[in-house]
Amino acid sequence: MVKVSIIGATGYAGAQLLSILVRHPQAQITHITSESHTGKKISELYPHLRDVCDMTLESLADIEQIGADSDFVFIALPHGHAMDVGKKLDALPVRIIDLGADYRFNDTTVYEAWYHVAHIHPNAHRVYGLAEIYREDIRTAKIIGNAGCFTTASILALAPLVKHHLVDPNSIIVDAASGVSGAGRGLKLGNHFPELYDNFKAYNVAHHRHTPEIEQALADLSGEDIIINFTPHLVPMSRGILATCYATLNENVPVEMIDAAFSKTYAGEKFIRLLGRDAYPETKFVRGSNFCDIAWHIDERTRRVIILSAIDNLIKGAAGQAVQNFNIAAGFYESVGLDVVPMYP
Amino acid sequence: MVKVSIIGATGYAGAQLLSILVRHPQAQITHITSESHTGKKISELYPHLRDVCDMTLESLADIEQIGADSDFVFIALPHGHAMDVGKKLDALPVRIIDLGADYRFNDTTVYEAWYHVAHIHPNAHRVYGLAEIYREDIRTAKIIGNAGCFTTASILALAPLVKHHLVDPNSIIVDAASGVSGAGRGLKLGNHFPELYDNFKAYNVAHHRHTPEIEQALADLSGEDIIINFTPHLVPMSRGILATCYATLNENVPVEMIDAAFSKTYAGEKFIRLLGRDAYPETKFVRGSNFCDIAWHIDERTRRVIILSAIDNLIKGAAGQAVQNFNIAAGFYESVGLDVVPMYP
Amino acid sequence: MVKVSIIGATGYAGAQLLSILVRHPQAQITHITSESHTGKKISELYPHLRDVCDMTLESLADIEQIGADSDFVFIALPHGHAMDVGKKLDALPVRIIDLGADYRFNDTTVYEAWYHVAHIHPNAHRVYGLAEIYREDIRTAKIIGNAGCFTTASILALAPLVKHHLVDPNSIIVDAASGVSGAGRGLKLGNHFPELYDNFKAYNVAHHRHTPEIEQALADLSGEDIIINFTPHLVPMSRGILATCYATLNENVPVEMIDAAFSKTYAGEKFIRLLGRDAYPETKFVRGSNFCDIAWHIDERTRRVIILSAIDNLIKGAAGQAVQNFNIAAGFYESVGLDVVPMYP
Amino acid sequence: MVKVSIIGATGYAGAQLLSILVRHPQAQITHITSESHTGKKISELYPHLRDVCDMTLESLADIEQIGADSDFVFIALPHGHAMDVGKKLDALPVRIIDLGADYRFNDTTVYEAWYHVAHIHPNAHRVYGLAEIYREDIRTAKIIGNAGCFTTASILALAPLVKHHLVDPNSIIVDAASGVSGAGRGLKLGNHFPELYDNFKAYNVAHHRHTPEIEQALADLSGEDIIINFTPHLVPMSRGILATCYATLNENVPVEMIDAAFSKTYAGEKFIRLLGRDAYPETKFVRGSNFCDIAWHIDERTRRVIILSAIDNLIKGAAGQAVQNFNIAAGFYESVGLDVVPMYP
Repeated sequence: MVKVSIIGATGYAGAQLLSILVRHPQAQITHITSESHTGKKISELYPHLRDVCDMTLESLADIEQIGADSDFVFIALPHGHAMDVGKKLDALPVRIIDLGADYRFNDTTVYEAWYHVAHIHPNAHRVYGLAEIYREDIRTAKIIGNAGCFTTASILALAPLVKHHLVDPNSIIVDAASGVSGAGRGLKLGNHFPELYDNFKAYNVAHHRHTPEIEQALADLSGEDIIINFTPHLVPMSRGILATCYATLNENVPVEMIDAAFSKTYAGEKFIRLLGRDAYPETKFVRGSNFCDIAWHIDERTRRVIILSAIDNLIKGAAGQAVQNFNIAAGFYESVGLDVVPMYP
Repeated sequence: MVKVSIIGATGYAGAQLLSILVRHPQAQITHITSESHTGKKISELYPHLRDVCDMTLESLADIEQIGADSDFVFIALPHGHAMDVGKKLDALPVRIIDLGADYRFNDTTVYEAWYHVAHIHPNAHRVYGLAEIYREDIRTAKIIGNAGCFTTASILALAPLVKHHLVDPNSIIVDAASGVSGAGRGLKLGNHFPELYDNFKAYNVAHHRHTPEIEQALADLSGEDIIINFTPHLVPMSRGILATCYATLNENVPVEMIDAAFSKTYAGEKFIRLLGRDAYPETKFVRGSNFCDIAWHIDERTRRVIILSAIDNLIKGAAGQAVQNFNIAAGFYESVGLDVVPMYP
Repeated sequence: MVKVSIIGATGYAGAQLLSILVRHPQAQITHITSESHTGKKISELYPHLRDVCDMTLESLADIEQIGADSDFVFIALPHGHAMDVGKKLDALPVRIIDLGADYRFNDTTVYEAWYHVAHIHPNAHRVYGLAEIYREDIRTAKIIGNAGCFTTASILALAPLVKHHLVDPNSIIVDAASGVSGAGRGLKLGNHFPELYDNFKAYNVAHHRHTPEIEQALADLSGEDIIINFTPHLVPMSRGILATCYATLNENVPVEMIDAAFSKTYAGEKFIRLLGRDAYPETKFVRGSNFCDIAWHIDERTRRVIILSAIDNLIKGAAGQAVQNFNIAAGFYESVGLDVVPMYP
Repeated sequence: MVKVSIIGATGYAGAQLLSILVRHPQAQITHITSESHTGKKISELYPHLRDVCDMTLESLADIEQIGADSDFVFIALPHGHAMDVGKKLDALPVRIIDLGADYRFNDTTVYEAWYHVAHIHPNAHRVYGLAEIYREDIRTAKIIGNAGCFTTASILALAPLVKHHLVDPNSIIVDAASGVSGAGRGLKLGNHFPELYDNFKAYNVAHHRHTPEIEQALADLSGEDIIINFTPHLVPMSRGILATCYATLNENVPVEMIDAAFSKTYAGEKFIRLLGRDAYPETKFVRGSNFCDIAWHIDERTRRVIILSAIDNLIKGAAGQAVQNFNIAAGFYESVGLDVVPMYP
């Protein structure tokens, strides 16, 4: 059994992570923390966990001890806080999987520009935690900066085309929509039930922080800088992200080459389900699972390709992805603890 | 009092139209029809109308008599059926407002190509029923081809920029999302409650029939052919459309020129609410009303403008727009019967 | 024009009231207040009101001046605050309609026992504001204590049977369910969107404050004390209340007598729609309107009658009822400003 | 490995059952059937099952062969069809778990009276499939008539009080509410998304077929005939049932005796979570799991006890219960394949 701890277990991502790890046959949870609810049982905050996990929340004040007790530490804190934990655990043999943004960027100045906070751990031995693209580096990295939710859906949708240089890199637009759990458990008028019900809206247009994260991965894949548009929307539902991605096809790219790019890129991937050309992913088809479903359409009139990808934002977009990365890093089969059937309807 | 009839009153658009007209102080409803429910009261099919309107549904078999009894005939039939009615009423003094697609196209070959049905009334004296753009022609046209729901939101969002040549016409992408009432009252597995709840998906990518309708209006405004991408999505809610429109700014277009284009184009428009630059329309802010709320954002990094527009698909996207057109055609104040406060929350 | 003011215009009930009054042909709004948002426009807090009502929120500090400027003052404050306003306006000729609980009880000790606050205005000239039962007193009362939401649905469902002594008064159980707007606009984890979506629960079992209010009205009608069970539930929707009421039939009461009790009691009532025996009200059939739809069922096996009633909690359960009471008190037709067609779907 | 088949795999209950069995470590699925979709893959009908289960649907025409290939046959057909299958498999060593109503009644004349169909297999060796009450008989029965959804929630809520004679058996009222998946996958206007969204209603008042099923179990427990009221409601959500049960306490029953009845009755039960007195189950706390959460409240004013119980209608109310019964019948640990963490939020 590998010993794991969760720093920040009371947000939606943290609680989802706990739900997965508590049933993971090769993980043993040693500590779970919360600063605002120290001393309470997690099942008092999340009654669905009653009898499933009644562990008591501790403070992260003695993070070094938590680190010493753990083989892996998962961090599910708001951005800006994980790098402090990461730095303190630098000298210990424990490995870190951060679900936040602190360790996602190769270039910490990009992080600082978009997150408006100084990076205090720029020289960390880290990797971007999107297994389908960075699997080999994940095996050995000290710190894994788990990919974000919108970014996972967007990168996985665009990677095959960008990697094989089939589309104009300056033409990329990602228009995405998320269920409300993506906004977290913190109270906010915009997420108050009556405000959001029977309502649909965009937010953070041209300024969402997942933008540079998508650009970084696409640049890695293509070998050149890429600037995209990314527009998130909020759907009156709990879970799920659908990314609708637009890119202009390069000249003389036959449709078959598009199809082949997807097949080749994702051959053997357990969590990518290619629905194929002209198909339609739905967020409910992946709900509760670690799957990313992908389909693509060619608009012959405009010579654009439209790629659709769907994930559960809390699983493949957060906690499931973290466990997938954990499995890789720990040397387990990649799907251990994650072979969940999507919940439908 | 002006005498009006509704041909096809039992779909969502027809029932919404009836709900508006029954409270319109200058309209008197003379006939309402349904072929599948002839002889029933409308309030048997729509119990919310009990004591509000208990009129009996008739057949449209004797459409000439209905036409003779009416000053205006509203048609809310599936596409392909209105032109038959229109043709039969050609010789009568009655005027027609069709909520479907049959009379929306200047060039009936475009209609035929997208709707796969021969047009039997190509020489009708018709106008496209989007008041903010075609108001003058609406005053006198025999037949008004009421604009579609997605198209209304899209055209109103893009009109100021296209008309003033501020964006590259080949760069336009419209990514839109609609509540489920837009799909009508007909039963379909995809719209069965448990299938759609907590679910989000795209549909008809690259093939939705509102595409050429948007293109026609934008071409009218710009003076040149325009080909766009249009992608609709289905939101698990009842009502509302949000269109997120992307276009690349022409060189040297200052932001103020964008703002001014909107202000000028919609000065004095009762049903357009310009929320301004960097604002966020929400579908719930217009729910139940004839408003179209519009805001815009500039992404300096990509030089794209993102325009957001929200309507109630059944009101400004269908029945409200029809009554607005009716008011114009009949010489009433444009907002008679439509000065409804949006229902929130 | 009658001059009206709204004290506490920024909660859901206050904003709904404003939405109705702004279109009321015989009311002129003179003041709207909010202590936490003084100086802001109401349309900044409720963007759906933009261009509809952009009045500025004032403080109620100078309530005497507001009273002097008004013929009617509507109060939509949390319980415990209205009686302070009421007392200060006692000497002025202004009349008061309170949407809260402060003036609902004949016996202020009942209020004090359930609301845990001392009543400072026990000798007010007040009436319970449920027009279908207390219409005559409403015409002349200084202060109208507008009936609550659950109570309106429950009392209207049970009144005919209790009044005509057709059921055992000790057998009454009211099991009711409300949309989330009934819980107000204040943020609370339980009403955070992801917590409530795809979720259903009871709350305040055996302790909800609407219990003694229902009992008071039923006792008034029957002439004897009545103790009931009342259980509220929260439905993951915005609006609407359905009350399911159970009572044991007295011996030898024929079914026709039940039917007749409803018909007689509500003959001529504009806002009561009797769907009849064996019918099913749905909250959506009354959404956005001031209707209360009622149906009843006899279970021959248990000799219980089950009465179902549906209202829009913010309209007939709050703001619409307040305007109905206002119309009565001001001598207008009872339905002025309230002849709204329910919004469906 | 135990060989299992599913007769009628394409309804919601059948598909949920498949989702559980496909991950059950001791079950091997040999046949799945559908008459209307014979020859299709189940994952064509339920794309969430793609790569999870792509088995082909067969006809049940050769049910004897299916029976011969199986140790257990699960039946998820509309009522009236399972008894035909059951009869045909009578002579084979295969055991049967029917998710429908055909084998739920001790007295088939009760079944015939409520379901209006003749029972063709009245002498079957059968047991009512509610493990917490009939566990011992389930171990050996040839046919298990899996308990219904509303009934499971209702019986488990009331069993402790009825069994220990703490309440008046003639006073019982069950008021329950279900998500829409309980109504199945068949299309129906009432379950069309726009009709049900933001809507709440009762249905089948005094006539729901789960009534006699609840009565049968309560009578078994108490030793006397019991007649109850049962009223179902439809909640605009996908999954979950909450039962709110009312009963009058017998005289001199102290509250502690109530608490003790629950503790004793459910001691050691893996799937019953007693939240305790004055607590509130929520359907979302059990969503996706086989748990039944129970709490109870005493109303001292009316001397009624109100018991609240929550289940996932498709799991503990159907497929999970079937697998629990299967585990018991096959001699496995009762929770094999069912130790799923509820999905929240």
